[in-house]
Amino acid sequence: MLIADLMMRVFRVKVEVKLKPVVLDPQGKTVLGALHNLGYLEVQETRIGKLIELTVKDESEQKVRERVEEMCKKLLSNPVIEDFVIKIE
Amino acid sequence: MLIADLMMRVFRVKVEVKLKPVVLDPQGKTVLGALHNLGYLEVQETRIGKLIELTVKDESEQKVRERVEEMCKKLLSNPVIEDFVIKIE
Repeated sequence: MLIADLMMRVFRVKVEVKLKPVVLDPQGKTVLGALHNLGYLEVQETRIGKLIELTVKDESEQKVRERVEEMCKKLLSNPVIEDFVIKIE
Repeated sequence: MLIADLMMRVFRVKVEVKLKPVVLDPQGKTVLGALHNLGYLEVQETRIGKLIELTVKDESEQKVRERVEEMCKKLLSNPVIEDFVIKIE
């Protein structure tokens, strides 16, 4: 085993990908309609996003955050219409 | 305005819907492959779920939790293959 391997830790990362507030959410609207039909009239708004859970092996939390931010911009989200939040445990 | 209306508060609720750990996640596998192709070899696992944000007007947090739990079982998740977590702000 290399020394580099010994310095590695495993991080659990949660990425929340949500539509930007100005973007319409037809899927959310449909779910809201279905909830109202079922009698849940107290629900006023529904928005649906993605929850992406990653298991990442790296040196430090800071490194993980930088890399996951890159992944979000390149692949995990569409920066034109979506925002993302990264949570590391 | 009725007194009942005055007792109402607005709650922001987040529901995380994830596949149960025993259930295969082909979408997650595909994303993992794509991340590896882009050079993010530190990612070991990827699982993809839904993030549902609700705005609910009701009397108390406890009431909201009970009702949202019902909504999850009836509509928002598939209890056979998915778990859900409710977070109220």
